[in-house]
Amino acid sequence: MVSSSGHHPAPLADKRNTAPDPGHSPRLRHLIIHLTLRLRQSGPYLGDSGHDHADNARKPGPFAVPPHTLELVSATTALLTDHYELTMLQAALARGTAGRRSVFEVFGRRLPGGRRYGVVGGTGRLLEAIEAFRFDDDALAYLERTCVVDGRTLDWLAGYRFSGDVWGYGEGEAYFPNSPLLVVESSFAEAVLLETLALSVLNYDSAVATAASRMTTAAGQRPCIEMGSRRAHEWAAVAAARAAYIAGFASTSNLEAGRTHGVPTRGTSAHSFTLLHDSERDAFTAQVDSLGKGTTLLVDTYDVAEAVRLGVEIAGTSLGAVRLDSGDLLSLAGEVRRQLDDLGATETRIVVTSDLDEHAIAALAAAPVDAYGVGTALVTGAGTPTAGLVYKLVAREDDDGDLVAVEKRSAGKVSHGGRKYALRRLGARGVAEAEVIGVEHAPADDSRGATDRPLLMPLIRDGEVVGREPLSAARDRHRRAREELPPTALQLSRGEPAIPTRWEERT
Amino acid sequence: MVSSSGHHPAPLADKRNTAPDPGHSPRLRHLIIHLTLRLRQSGPYLGDSGHDHADNARKPGPFAVPPHTLELVSATTALLTDHYELTMLQAALARGTAGRRSVFEVFGRRLPGGRRYGVVGGTGRLLEAIEAFRFDDDALAYLERTCVVDGRTLDWLAGYRFSGDVWGYGEGEAYFPNSPLLVVESSFAEAVLLETLALSVLNYDSAVATAASRMTTAAGQRPCIEMGSRRAHEWAAVAAARAAYIAGFASTSNLEAGRTHGVPTRGTSAHSFTLLHDSERDAFTAQVDSLGKGTTLLVDTYDVAEAVRLGVEIAGTSLGAVRLDSGDLLSLAGEVRRQLDDLGATETRIVVTSDLDEHAIAALAAAPVDAYGVGTALVTGAGTPTAGLVYKLVAREDDDGDLVAVEKRSAGKVSHGGRKYALRRLGARGVAEAEVIGVEHAPADDSRGATDRPLLMPLIRDGEVVGREPLSAARDRHRRAREELPPTALQLSRGEPAIPTRWEERT
Repeated sequence: MVSSSGHHPAPLADKRNTAPDPGHSPRLRHLIIHLTLRLRQSGPYLGDSGHDHADNARKPGPFAVPPHTLELVSATTALLTDHYELTMLQAALARGTAGRRSVFEVFGRRLPGGRRYGVVGGTGRLLEAIEAFRFDDDALAYLERTCVVDGRTLDWLAGYRFSGDVWGYGEGEAYFPNSPLLVVESSFAEAVLLETLALSVLNYDSAVATAASRMTTAAGQRPCIEMGSRRAHEWAAVAAARAAYIAGFASTSNLEAGRTHGVPTRGTSAHSFTLLHDSERDAFTAQVDSLGKGTTLLVDTYDVAEAVRLGVEIAGTSLGAVRLDSGDLLSLAGEVRRQLDDLGATETRIVVTSDLDEHAIAALAAAPVDAYGVGTALVTGAGTPTAGLVYKLVAREDDDGDLVAVEKRSAGKVSHGGRKYALRRLGARGVAEAEVIGVEHAPADDSRGATDRPLLMPLIRDGEVVGREPLSAARDRHRRAREELPPTALQLSRGEPAIPTRWEERT
Repeated sequence: MVSSSGHHPAPLADKRNTAPDPGHSPRLRHLIIHLTLRLRQSGPYLGDSGHDHADNARKPGPFAVPPHTLELVSATTALLTDHYELTMLQAALARGTAGRRSVFEVFGRRLPGGRRYGVVGGTGRLLEAIEAFRFDDDALAYLERTCVVDGRTLDWLAGYRFSGDVWGYGEGEAYFPNSPLLVVESSFAEAVLLETLALSVLNYDSAVATAASRMTTAAGQRPCIEMGSRRAHEWAAVAAARAAYIAGFASTSNLEAGRTHGVPTRGTSAHSFTLLHDSERDAFTAQVDSLGKGTTLLVDTYDVAEAVRLGVEIAGTSLGAVRLDSGDLLSLAGEVRRQLDDLGATETRIVVTSDLDEHAIAALAAAPVDAYGVGTALVTGAGTPTAGLVYKLVAREDDDGDLVAVEKRSAGKVSHGGRKYALRRLGARGVAEAEVIGVEHAPADDSRGATDRPLLMPLIRDGEVVGREPLSAARDRHRRAREELPPTALQLSRGEPAIPTRWEERT
């Protein structure tokens, strides 16, 4: 049974579609919580067909679904987890080793796709997901019914909440091979359960943020608009819009990313809008009349030159923009620019879309393009849809209560035991020179060049989130971190990491 | 304010971890609903740190989060939508064209990645997402606050529910270039709003189902286990597990996919479990003691041969399985098989994992492997992370009330106007010969070979879902559809579609 306050805030005084503070108020913020509802179907489900849109006066109450048909059974991220995390827990509880203090780390062995640097994405989402990581009645009933774990383990899970410490690279930070992006210290039992969730969030969001950063580099001062929602899982799309914004995108087409994360949203129109109308003239007139002369007209449904002429005829020379979504964009943009200028629409911008990636954006650098709309390549990580990060046990308590380094030695997947600390070594004029990873100690400033920058910040302390920040902070951090890298970092070609990773072994 | 019944079902009599009927009872089923909650932070958020796991008696009530801190504000999929769908709606409402009866279709212009066939995934999820597509108070307040659309459009959105008709290919069905996977008929206004959501769901799930089908083909009779959750967005991972199951995977590691979709779950153990313990002997003993001799031991943390020897020493010759996660799996599997047989463990199975894709699976066909665990490649569509499907207006009402075909003519992206129907043409022995797409008419059986098979089935009628089915039905459909294809369909190399798409024009 779900109920609501029926709250309906008054419109803000400033009604422009600009980003609200992405951090919202510290005392009032939005969470996306994924609930499992049980539907009781006492009649045809939502069977009141023949709804008449002529009679659609705005009704109060957020729930269009009759509340009596739905029963809230679960609000948790705890089953976004691999089966084996729970069976390992069961065996460790039985053996008496589940309580051993343990350190797990998230890192990538390499930068996939020949990238020069990676970009940390997802940290803020992960903190919220960890807060929601509880085993509620429905989750426990599922685990019991399917015999995933035994009764003792179920009892332990019922009381689960993460009570340990987490440190990590700030969201938006650059990273390199073996950078310890996240360090989780707690009992083995508490920490092992977070493996799958932590990797899911960080792997997807970091893959998108990394691709997005290359695109905004290629675009230079021209804005990039994220519009890939339709080419990604519907909730991955929201995360992608958020990650792209961190890496410098100006806006997104995704409305849920606007509501939940405060990312500015933008939209133009589609071919279907033109085709709906009896002529392109009708369609453009409808759009300009309703959305204003500042709107963006899609001009490639039929003949581009005719559509551009028509757009300026209808909207005048203050037409906001035209969008090109097909053809040879390099030559077409030039032709359209000349045509617009000849028509006196010198301020009308040209937005290009159509399967752009960072290379296509770079290839249009000399074309008179004002903004790039990027879809598929963004949400799929531009050829690298997952960052390839892993979550590994690097140290754990022994029988004497000492923390000892551990590492596996399997072929080709050697890990580096011991808890890590990280520092970005900065040289003259503050340019990054190396990623220094200290094993079991924090590396010190080398007293040369600019002051070196420690990279791990506290995120959770004694189970309480202390690293929450507005999205704008991650966006600012990314800009600063990228500016600090040597120029080779901004090359789009496949190559070596922009700075080397240097180990400082335990002494 | 969220409350719950605190419901706690009794364990089922049959406690094995087998799949419940994935369709659940027709009168009682689970939905994942994604709610937006507003947090009122009257004190430190979840600040009761120092939780003691020694005192973790199972507490009733699904909500570990104090309910007074959370307020339900939204339960809708309606903002999983591109901004421009709403601005187009506004302009069409103002122009008086929003109510024009329209037909939109989902199709792919080609099969990406040189695939021989595509597999429809996501239909069942989409039907639930359309049911939840309502603009509630919080969504409307967001749209008002950010001035995405005007007041008239907000009023219209407040009354929105889809009241039209949808037909589609059955989930699990094979598809080809230009197959009309989904046909949506309603007013322009109602149908255009579903574009982004429909494509998000179908593009991701179909990409995964298509990749999964190639993997299960390559694996032959050997089971494939889905374990890619950590390499995908956390909710995409659940959808991926479901799509893989449709395409023949035996099980998943993802527990939420087990709870929500009834997919059987499986797990073994990780390197961290071995490293937690003082020795591999301790770890294996703990695992076998707790999980039974039928468990799967991970044997590549240190030395494989020694671990295999130790495993059989501890569990005996009835050890369930060993897992290999690194090295040259082809030669290693042979060595381990010989060692197991020499030790008398002839029934102990060998499970291989480690960045497998369909080609790696095929390359292991001659190796003594009993099961494949597939992760990254599965959830990222094996190089094709999105199916590239589009949602296009193909017909709409004119001023006389007649439905007229429409199509755009932009360079390189020509669409094919007019409402489509589809038939799989079957020849002798029931082998598929062509995808016949009828424009504005349903193609007829050609009276040769087996009876041709119409491909569109009703999914929503007058706004009511009529195409709901258990997941097992999609899985069965996929198996049958794949068996019907010519042998070339099962080639893994890049190539042409296994059957041609043939247009039957309007007469």
